[in-house]
Amino acid sequence: MKKKNRGFINKLKFDSKGLIPVVVQDWKDNTVLMVAYMNKAAVKRTLKSKKATYWSRSRNKFWVKGEQSGNIQKVKEIFFDCDGDCLLLKVDQVGKAACHTGYRTCFFTRVINKGKTNIKGKRIFDPKKVYKN
Amino acid sequence: MKKKNRGFINKLKFDSKGLIPVVVQDWKDNTVLMVAYMNKAAVKRTLKSKKATYWSRSRNKFWVKGEQSGNIQKVKEIFFDCDGDCLLLKVDQVGKAACHTGYRTCFFTRVINKGKTNIKGKRIFDPKKVYKN
Repeated sequence: MKKKNRGFINKLKFDSKGLIPVVVQDWKDNTVLMVAYMNKAAVKRTLKSKKATYWSRSRNKFWVKGEQSGNIQKVKEIFFDCDGDCLLLKVDQVGKAACHTGYRTCFFTRVINKGKTNIKGKRIFDPKKVYKN
Repeated sequence: MKKKNRGFINKLKFDSKGLIPVVVQDWKDNTVLMVAYMNKAAVKRTLKSKKATYWSRSRNKFWVKGEQSGNIQKVKEIFFDCDGDCLLLKVDQVGKAACHTGYRTCFFTRVINKGKTNIKGKRIFDPKKVYKN
């Protein structure tokens, strides 16, 4: 009997918690927007829906990025690395900001001299207005 | 007594193994070259030497990227994310290729239709010639 080909997902190495890190990049200018995690089911959901769907380690559930803010990530391209233990998503970031703090990228804190930091970039949205409870 | 300020490193969240993932990006065109891991000491070594220095999970030791191939990574900028659990390094990649397979980036495998993959990019160096034992 022919073995069912389940494709690239079987080449991926998930960690002891069943997760793989995902680097998320703007498909137009290559800005790294965030890093999140997927389990195997989240990878499948992302492939099917074309909307980036992660596994939230803090809430312990699936997390369709933008489900609350509307800032979804439309997946344009998916890559994995030579070891198969990391994914790279190129996305069209709706709303232009990926970070829940309102910045375009989660990586807005830059290390400068002597261990000090500064902020690179400006807030695109006000999180208090976007995340209402 | 004033508490000693040890800077941004104390804001970082290392995992249960003492590691933090590091996204490595070309400082000129923002290509994501690889993802590796650092422990606290590797972060300090990187800051001091300005050469990207990781913790090799497979060899269980410090790993100065390029120590064997000569393809070191000169660190231009360091960022960390809003959660403090991921670093982003912008580097000048000596030799133009970061991946030990000879490709510029470790993310040279692209997912296409039905779980199949293809290769994006070309080998820049022949690993057999670079890694001699």
